[in-house]
Amino acid sequence: MKNTFGTSVAVTLFGESHGPEIGAVIDGLAPGLPVDESFIAGQLTLRRPAGRIGTARQETDAFRIVSGVFEGRTTGSALTILIPNADTRSGDYQRGPARPGHADYAAFAKYHGFEDYRGGGHFSGRITAALVAAAAVVIPALQAKGILAGTHVARCAGINDAPFSEDLAADLRKLNSRSFAVLDESKEAQMREAIESAAARGDSVGGILETAVLGLPAGVGEPWFDTVESVLSHALFSVPAVKGVEFGDGFALADMTGSQANDPFRMRGGKPCTVTNHNGGVNGGITNGMPLLFRCAVKPTPSIALEQQTINPLTGEETGLKITGRHDPAIVHRARVVVDSVTVLTLCDLLAPRYGTDWLANSKL
Amino acid sequence: MKNTFGTSVAVTLFGESHGPEIGAVIDGLAPGLPVDESFIAGQLTLRRPAGRIGTARQETDAFRIVSGVFEGRTTGSALTILIPNADTRSGDYQRGPARPGHADYAAFAKYHGFEDYRGGGHFSGRITAALVAAAAVVIPALQAKGILAGTHVARCAGINDAPFSEDLAADLRKLNSRSFAVLDESKEAQMREAIESAAARGDSVGGILETAVLGLPAGVGEPWFDTVESVLSHALFSVPAVKGVEFGDGFALADMTGSQANDPFRMRGGKPCTVTNHNGGVNGGITNGMPLLFRCAVKPTPSIALEQQTINPLTGEETGLKITGRHDPAIVHRARVVVDSVTVLTLCDLLAPRYGTDWLANSKL
Amino acid sequence: MKNTFGTSVAVTLFGESHGPEIGAVIDGLAPGLPVDESFIAGQLTLRRPAGRIGTARQETDAFRIVSGVFEGRTTGSALTILIPNADTRSGDYQRGPARPGHADYAAFAKYHGFEDYRGGGHFSGRITAALVAAAAVVIPALQAKGILAGTHVARCAGINDAPFSEDLAADLRKLNSRSFAVLDESKEAQMREAIESAAARGDSVGGILETAVLGLPAGVGEPWFDTVESVLSHALFSVPAVKGVEFGDGFALADMTGSQANDPFRMRGGKPCTVTNHNGGVNGGITNGMPLLFRCAVKPTPSIALEQQTINPLTGEETGLKITGRHDPAIVHRARVVVDSVTVLTLCDLLAPRYGTDWLANSKL
Amino acid sequence: MKNTFGTSVAVTLFGESHGPEIGAVIDGLAPGLPVDESFIAGQLTLRRPAGRIGTARQETDAFRIVSGVFEGRTTGSALTILIPNADTRSGDYQRGPARPGHADYAAFAKYHGFEDYRGGGHFSGRITAALVAAAAVVIPALQAKGILAGTHVARCAGINDAPFSEDLAADLRKLNSRSFAVLDESKEAQMREAIESAAARGDSVGGILETAVLGLPAGVGEPWFDTVESVLSHALFSVPAVKGVEFGDGFALADMTGSQANDPFRMRGGKPCTVTNHNGGVNGGITNGMPLLFRCAVKPTPSIALEQQTINPLTGEETGLKITGRHDPAIVHRARVVVDSVTVLTLCDLLAPRYGTDWLANSKL
Repeated sequence: MKNTFGTSVAVTLFGESHGPEIGAVIDGLAPGLPVDESFIAGQLTLRRPAGRIGTARQETDAFRIVSGVFEGRTTGSALTILIPNADTRSGDYQRGPARPGHADYAAFAKYHGFEDYRGGGHFSGRITAALVAAAAVVIPALQAKGILAGTHVARCAGINDAPFSEDLAADLRKLNSRSFAVLDESKEAQMREAIESAAARGDSVGGILETAVLGLPAGVGEPWFDTVESVLSHALFSVPAVKGVEFGDGFALADMTGSQANDPFRMRGGKPCTVTNHNGGVNGGITNGMPLLFRCAVKPTPSIALEQQTINPLTGEETGLKITGRHDPAIVHRARVVVDSVTVLTLCDLLAPRYGTDWLANSKL
Repeated sequence: MKNTFGTSVAVTLFGESHGPEIGAVIDGLAPGLPVDESFIAGQLTLRRPAGRIGTARQETDAFRIVSGVFEGRTTGSALTILIPNADTRSGDYQRGPARPGHADYAAFAKYHGFEDYRGGGHFSGRITAALVAAAAVVIPALQAKGILAGTHVARCAGINDAPFSEDLAADLRKLNSRSFAVLDESKEAQMREAIESAAARGDSVGGILETAVLGLPAGVGEPWFDTVESVLSHALFSVPAVKGVEFGDGFALADMTGSQANDPFRMRGGKPCTVTNHNGGVNGGITNGMPLLFRCAVKPTPSIALEQQTINPLTGEETGLKITGRHDPAIVHRARVVVDSVTVLTLCDLLAPRYGTDWLANSKL
Repeated sequence: MKNTFGTSVAVTLFGESHGPEIGAVIDGLAPGLPVDESFIAGQLTLRRPAGRIGTARQETDAFRIVSGVFEGRTTGSALTILIPNADTRSGDYQRGPARPGHADYAAFAKYHGFEDYRGGGHFSGRITAALVAAAAVVIPALQAKGILAGTHVARCAGINDAPFSEDLAADLRKLNSRSFAVLDESKEAQMREAIESAAARGDSVGGILETAVLGLPAGVGEPWFDTVESVLSHALFSVPAVKGVEFGDGFALADMTGSQANDPFRMRGGKPCTVTNHNGGVNGGITNGMPLLFRCAVKPTPSIALEQQTINPLTGEETGLKITGRHDPAIVHRARVVVDSVTVLTLCDLLAPRYGTDWLANSKL
Repeated sequence: MKNTFGTSVAVTLFGESHGPEIGAVIDGLAPGLPVDESFIAGQLTLRRPAGRIGTARQETDAFRIVSGVFEGRTTGSALTILIPNADTRSGDYQRGPARPGHADYAAFAKYHGFEDYRGGGHFSGRITAALVAAAAVVIPALQAKGILAGTHVARCAGINDAPFSEDLAADLRKLNSRSFAVLDESKEAQMREAIESAAARGDSVGGILETAVLGLPAGVGEPWFDTVESVLSHALFSVPAVKGVEFGDGFALADMTGSQANDPFRMRGGKPCTVTNHNGGVNGGITNGMPLLFRCAVKPTPSIALEQQTINPLTGEETGLKITGRHDPAIVHRARVVVDSVTVLTLCDLLAPRYGTDWLANSKL
């Protein structure tokens, strides 16, 4: 249903890039969860552009929680977070030609020209700040239950990060403490350089995000149609610029044989485990208790300084376009916290029906 | 919501591999659509295994429509299709060790051992027959509106089919007339041979399905969270064995620059079009009027004759397993019509809210 | 969403009065619930017309469960019940003038004439047989948890039954064992006589059903918009002929003062209770642990033998109409089990999110 | 789903009586609707308490629209209205004994004591201000399509207003222009006097609201389970203090015969009409083109100054309670605009699927 995602734990997003405020309503949270505003602020910082590889637009992201929290804890009713748009320079964004690779023309076709076109309006990546804030409310509670998610920039501008190690928990903790999420720190400089170099050419680059989630119990998800993969991909594909999602070995599985792709089961510490994890922790759409693994393809930022061919949707006129203003030459490194955020919100929605409304606050999985 | 997909046009699936009947309820159809039972039968034939590369299980798929059709047309109320399970040899499937790569263990964890384990039960690919029958009700109506979908086996066991040509409409008509959906007919024999060779080794192979949809209007989908990509991937990932979904150039976009990935707009015949289609007909989650293009990774069939290591979920015992009985050494060529089916059902659900309940019957897009 | 009710435990209804089969899919049930087919048959008998005060149409209601049950217990996947329409005399129902008080004209306006008009088609009370069968799957499990529902014909043709006594549990057990659900047995004969007398005049009568539910925990329901009253009334108003729903003292509360209407709290056995129950067990839309009490107004059967004025929707012609064929001169006494059924299904849907998927099978409230 | 109502046009409510802001997100609106802020302000004024018969709490209800409106028109994306809580005297509301007739104890049982108890928190009637503002966005657009809703205080403290006249349209226009919505102006003084008299005794009174909607096309609603009556009652029962809902003659139909209750059809101006309207414009759950008529029972305000018996939910202690602070001795006259609001929002949600997203902006019914 449009701007709402989730059934048991549901997030509604609203706002436009250049409107007064953006925000999120999170409904269905257990009552009694401690709300850590400094953690929320920290997550927002991870999403914010920084330094030479980010847009010059600087938001302080001074959020306000206006409902659903009382005396520092969730009440169990709808929690609303508002984030003012402090630094909006609408003059930079007049209705003009449709920017290639952006939603401009598709939005025009959908909304008949009534859309707020400034800075992408409701389609702007800016809206993900509200999503990140919403997720930050539940991340500590999930971690307290042993559910830990993390994402790294597995590839950017053709440069690969190191793969996940044997010690996934350590990898995830490391990633969650870094502003540029790579496992091999030496890759940060290379990736930054490649991004800056693209920016210098007036161009942009993309990449691949790889996510792992530890601590999920076996048995989560539905066979038809709400498989874990279905519900997660639904959320992930709504993150701007994500154009591909794969679980486990994903597209590489297409070239494997069954004897290579099947993950044999063994008992470890009295618990069924798989020896390999080509299926990314999901069999038949249901978690099998192994780490959940998936990858998202993030396309290069469509806002580039180079001249492009396009049309004006209002007039139907063909025209050239040179985009000026503030833009990211890459968003893959910023999208990382957005992917984490939609992941944890989706997991809350998948787990709540199985364990009941209060599970996140009270019960032990 | 569990076994139901869709809000405006919703499909509910039920049944188990070895139960008496499987079926689907399709709700929200426009009244007055002609129902072509021979077309439904034809689509079911495309899904059925055949020859040496399919399981020996042969179903006649003699479906019955028990509600929602009157005097050959949809009534507008819930349409129910039932398909009896004629050829069930439950003796082949006793509760035993969890088959690696299958849902057996995950289902056990979810349903605490109460699941119907025979032949995968409710997780069985058999259930997709009901999905195919459901979609076959609407395909002719969509085609009458100029919306044409088709899928080819773009890759199987490492063998590539030819890519889509300039004349996509001709390609799709060709694919829809073939039982083994390749664009380059010479590839069918090679792929069949590779499948048979895997079968001879007691193994199985996977592949990639590539789908195109023509005739979609611009402006379909929602920015958050029901993007066209989100909703389609949700449906596609519930097709058994799909482990990756990508739109347009998908994962390849991660290595492109913005100037390569952006699709420039031009006017053609008074209508905005893109010169290239790297984004697969979707910008910002909304259709832009270009052909919708996506690819699904299909993993190799997990049922293989080779001995595998596994456990017995009931006892927690480690054991070896040699799967006997009837199995497909590949399902990618059969999954093709399933992917088509979930695609058209999803498109109906995406289009209906925009154009109203009756659009499929009465209006012109 | 159309023919589906419920989110956590969802029921989808399909079928037409004169189609081959009607049925229901119940999704979201806990795995492991014993399914008692003789109890289902018994509930269907309560709904069936009998004797001189029912329609002459006699259905054996020989249901089949075709999915979701394995070795006598629910599997946790979608459970489908089919009921063939054995005794359909379609000759009795040709497309003709719109029957006043029936859905005929409204359905024509909605479905543009494509609806199956025979016997009311999908609008027929016949469809409630599937609803009753669906509810009969869960009633024993609810009772095992101490949740007991029952309904009596509080009023029929102007004749009042006795009110509920102090011993509600005994009242409900009594009602559930009776084919004509009155608390004061002497009223059955009076009501039957009044119904027969109406039938003899070619007319019909209505009545009021009063329901009580014992054993609901406090804290069920949502403030906005899924209050217990909201969700129950949603279900109840979809029972054919229900035109009013009130909780507790309902419309009588409009004439009371706050000091009369408020139910004072006291502790009883260490548990908060109210001294009176004018609010019917619901405060602010949430259960308070007291018995849930509500009443439904059931209008007189619209099928009457007396001549009526009407139009032919196809031609727009004014005409007279004398309905022949088999009809109930009252349905209030039959609707009683339908009201019970939608009540228990709705309660399952309200309770499941709070206690988790498996609560009905495993946990103690 | 909890704090969200509607599927096509959905409203999400958030906020607490004494939190910083309350608000609503309206999703699914057609793009291009003019937004009339002075009309919104006017509707909020109708809801606000005034004079001696209202609570002394005075809110200016200075709302802000922070998303979904651009250049004075709806954009088609989520529209968010925020209303600050200006006049909160939290000192008046300490956690204390459960107020009888209020949600206090039920909320405590549901949220385990984490709820914001101040002034009823999220259960407060205060939240309806956001609902009224949300509805005020669409009312002018509905009226432009000829759909006109209005509600009068049909009964208050035992005093009846005049019934609707033959000229319903004039009645509704009259009601919508009045701050105290009665058809017979002489009744306002009597009702006010009865309310003041109850207040003087430390008590409160209830009443009945009667609503009519003109201009609805025939064919709106679904047979199972989303009948017009089902969906409206769902919304209406979430209005605080509503304890009964009846359509057409409602409970009075229970005592009528079929020949009295059936509404004969005739043609008027080439259009099917009913001669009477005992069924309130709904047959079989679907609109028949006649005026939609329904009535809501509103219980007396539970906040009374008289001493009451109750318990403290935290301690389980029995205690007496005298409620001090600002309270309404009646809310029926204020609830009138809330009932209008949920009615029009529900109608938007019922009409949109039939006519498509843009119907409210562009098309003619």
